[in-house]
Amino acid sequence: PIERSQDGTLRLLDQRALPHQERWIEVRTAEEAVAAIRALAVRGAPAIGIAAAYTIALIAEREGVEQARSAAHALASARPTAVNLGWACRRMLARLEACAGDGQDVASALASEADAIAHEQHAADRAIATAGAELVPPGGRLLTICNTGALATGAEGTALAVALEAHRRGRLAEVLVLETRPLLQGARLTTWELARAGVPHRLLCDSAAATACARGLVDCVFVGADRIARNGDVANKIGTYMLAVLARHHGIPFYVAAPLSTFDPATPDGRSIPIEERAPAEVSEFAGQAIAPARTKVWNPAFDITPAALVSAIVCERGVLRPPLATAIARVAGSAERSRRAGGAA
Amino acid sequence: PIERSQDGTLRLLDQRALPHQERWIEVRTAEEAVAAIRALAVRGAPAIGIAAAYTIALIAEREGVEQARSAAHALASARPTAVNLGWACRRMLARLEACAGDGQDVASALASEADAIAHEQHAADRAIATAGAELVPPGGRLLTICNTGALATGAEGTALAVALEAHRRGRLAEVLVLETRPLLQGARLTTWELARAGVPHRLLCDSAAATACARGLVDCVFVGADRIARNGDVANKIGTYMLAVLARHHGIPFYVAAPLSTFDPATPDGRSIPIEERAPAEVSEFAGQAIAPARTKVWNPAFDITPAALVSAIVCERGVLRPPLATAIARVAGSAERSRRAGGAA
Repeated sequence: PIERSQDGTLRLLDQRALPHQERWIEVRTAEEAVAAIRALAVRGAPAIGIAAAYTIALIAEREGVEQARSAAHALASARPTAVNLGWACRRMLARLEACAGDGQDVASALASEADAIAHEQHAADRAIATAGAELVPPGGRLLTICNTGALATGAEGTALAVALEAHRRGRLAEVLVLETRPLLQGARLTTWELARAGVPHRLLCDSAAATACARGLVDCVFVGADRIARNGDVANKIGTYMLAVLARHHGIPFYVAAPLSTFDPATPDGRSIPIEERAPAEVSEFAGQAIAPARTKVWNPAFDITPAALVSAIVCERGVLRPPLATAIARVAGSAERSRRAGGAA
Repeated sequence: PIERSQDGTLRLLDQRALPHQERWIEVRTAEEAVAAIRALAVRGAPAIGIAAAYTIALIAEREGVEQARSAAHALASARPTAVNLGWACRRMLARLEACAGDGQDVASALASEADAIAHEQHAADRAIATAGAELVPPGGRLLTICNTGALATGAEGTALAVALEAHRRGRLAEVLVLETRPLLQGARLTTWELARAGVPHRLLCDSAAATACARGLVDCVFVGADRIARNGDVANKIGTYMLAVLARHHGIPFYVAAPLSTFDPATPDGRSIPIEERAPAEVSEFAGQAIAPARTKVWNPAFDITPAALVSAIVCERGVLRPPLATAIARVAGSAERSRRAGGAA
């Protein structure tokens, strides 16, 4: 869903129009990219990182190094919660400064760096799907929220890639898809991806997750992440923490699937993660039509924090991280950081 | 929202059109009443019982005893979960048979019986509000789901009447209103009632309840009920069980407010309560517009079961019932049954 076109612009599949319409939008400027990210035309923690990286490369080619530098800063703060966005922008900036100092061709170096980020995401998604599928019991029913498929990462996906891989191995009975209010990424995007892949699934309201657990319809919960703190606390789509509490209450394993670019070594715990609060109209209106009385006050946090203590395991490209998560994260994040500094793939 | 008009028809405030429009519909036949109940033009466990009672009285007057008898049977099974509907229909039938045997004027006896049911609901709601308000701590923030106000009972309401009474006593800081997917009774109806009453409130997605609890924004949860089993298990709007689990996890009291007509002595526990599953389109469409891809399978249970073990107390017109709930329920339900058989108010 993120493509570079021949004329040097960036094309994004507009996720707001799915599943009804496959509409692409073109990005030519940093402002257009920031607007597309803020409006969720492109969404999903890894995907917005990749879109930002390609935008920075594009600006370097079309407008020069100085503009690319300021684009990177503007893009990094387009949305606050997902760390992949800041991570990708910082990585592009580091490459930019290194090349600029060396007198290298910055534009082509940045294009390679953006490609590297996208390719690494592909490899990470594949590794996550492989490791995660082992966690799905034979004949398992998997409950998930939001969209964590190809649309969310630009590659295969994270939690949803696990479901697809488990399906390919014949061990998945069904995916229960939470609709994911307010913007219905589950109802609109995850069902669309599962239908295209031929994976059996049912859609339900977020509030029905509890009774699904109580009735024995759920064998495991898989969710993505927007940021994972050093201690293993997880920021993800609003409703994720509800699932973690429900999973614990019902003795169901709760798994988080995310690439290392979602791990934030600079964030000690969930309290330090900024939670984006989005416009009231996302809740009080639907397709421009008011649902609630005019002037109704709304509280619309887009994410919540799941404490590490409720996470059964985190699945990343280095495998399955088990509690104590702080220790497991320190091990893989440290080695990822070292290999990145050495110029290798993260 | 339930009125008898001069020409002998029944007028119902159409709850589907709120909050945008105060539209009334007229009911002249049993079929129209059944359709209005099924389509949720009138909803709320006590309110549908009262609407059914008035319909039976209306049919007795317009079409005769035989038609009233068959109307009572048809209405009793219009929806399966709320017990008040069957309770009101059985009570009207009992009065009908008693009068028919005595040669009394059945139509006027049934009109009095329907009035009695409505008046008892008023008294019950008042008593619930008074007893429940004591449970709200000073400066308390109350979380609720669905609509349990005047629209739901035809009188003052149950859980929402507690909030209104606590507000009148100056001890309520805020009501957090869950939007209540799929039909948005919280967003459409509860906000409308709270705004008219001048009670501070905020609207949030159902999936945000968990993070509201974790952030310390909730001091107590109050919900209504569609049926309470002998052991204290509670059937109520889908999402209620989620709140009960969340309340337990966060050490927040979880209260159920319901009149004795919602208690079902014939139901031993929650497993025996039939849970209505409603049309997939309630979830997959909004205002006639598709949300999910065509042919997406949907699971749409309209209610869930909260086990008695998660209920801190039930507030009814006899006061606050504390655990062990089975014992407390046996005490009040037994006395209610006796006073009803003796011809007194339940």
